[in-house]
Amino acid sequence: MSVTSNKVSLPVIKRLPKYYRYVLEMQKNGVVKVSSSELARMMGTTASQVRQDFNCFGGFGQQGIGYHIDVLADQISKLLFSENKLDTILIGTGRLGRAISGYLTAEARGYHLMAAFDKSPEEIGKTLDCGVPISNIADLEALCAGRVPDVAVLCIPRDSARQLAPILVGMGIKGFWNFSHYDLSVDYEGITVENVHLGDSLMTLGYRVRNEHQD
Amino acid sequence: MSVTSNKVSLPVIKRLPKYYRYVLEMQKNGVVKVSSSELARMMGTTASQVRQDFNCFGGFGQQGIGYHIDVLADQISKLLFSENKLDTILIGTGRLGRAISGYLTAEARGYHLMAAFDKSPEEIGKTLDCGVPISNIADLEALCAGRVPDVAVLCIPRDSARQLAPILVGMGIKGFWNFSHYDLSVDYEGITVENVHLGDSLMTLGYRVRNEHQD
Repeated sequence: MSVTSNKVSLPVIKRLPKYYRYVLEMQKNGVVKVSSSELARMMGTTASQVRQDFNCFGGFGQQGIGYHIDVLADQISKLLFSENKLDTILIGTGRLGRAISGYLTAEARGYHLMAAFDKSPEEIGKTLDCGVPISNIADLEALCAGRVPDVAVLCIPRDSARQLAPILVGMGIKGFWNFSHYDLSVDYEGITVENVHLGDSLMTLGYRVRNEHQD
Repeated sequence: MSVTSNKVSLPVIKRLPKYYRYVLEMQKNGVVKVSSSELARMMGTTASQVRQDFNCFGGFGQQGIGYHIDVLADQISKLLFSENKLDTILIGTGRLGRAISGYLTAEARGYHLMAAFDKSPEEIGKTLDCGVPISNIADLEALCAGRVPDVAVLCIPRDSARQLAPILVGMGIKGFWNFSHYDLSVDYEGITVENVHLGDSLMTLGYRVRNEHQD
């Protein structure tokens, strides 16, 4: 209840990428303008919510006459991305880590993968598809001493994440993209954490499929 | 506002796997009992919420004297998993699909990966690490005719997901674990969908890191 006016709430921030996807698709299809109610239908929400969300970022155009797709695409893009890419390190180069490195280098703008680490002797010395070499996790602090990364992507087991997190926070990491089963967000309130709990997602799906399709 | 009393709300269901992870960890560490306030601290919520959540499933024990860890683990496990595994197909066996197949077969209980599909001639005929062969997506309906899968995991691009979704729904698929950038949940209200939008997650992280660590 005591939110500062400049601070946009997390649920609104989390909807931005979804708006962006729908806006880009309309742009691709040659749509020029869109109303808040049309956007709401695509997003599965209400027109009032769309207008409220956009007002958090200055409004994105005049209400009543609809939003210009090009303006929306441009404004949301400026919010989501930046000329200054976030220096990023990947920790854990197993199958998931390698799949994720593709996202970082190809699909997602705004990130620069500067190094990758693993503890397995079989991985160290190899190179990711994007050309980044895999270093020994033991050299983490030495290799990042000259240039502190902004973001660490954790594709490692729960216990490794728990051990490494305080070291990474101590190094100055500002954000985590966390695929381990360890909830970093509970421990580090000042740090930005996106937990992606694939196991949780799969358990939730199983519960819902079994319970919503019973009898 | 007109929720039927038997129906547990989605946010409560989504918290179950997280409770399960914390309960399993306590069990591993030899903890015998836990209070709702201790659980709340771990979960980053309130004791009242914990009690409310558990009451949706019958309470999991007596309030006031704390919850028995073994009872909690057993009861939540029964909710999340089932003897009857969900027949599951994987569509898209690129790097992400292969990483995900590991989750399905090793880390997550309750699923049986019965088939995998791809359209790339280089993939078709190969075998996943778990032993499941990769079939031609053109044979999807023929191969699933005898035994309709419960769940489809989509690790394919947006446009492929949009084209395949109505076919899969027509076949009788009850749930999707969707990694494509296409929001299936908007189109298919009766079908259970877990959208995992990795790109959205990464954009959200970028916005938050840049904005929370300015000035």
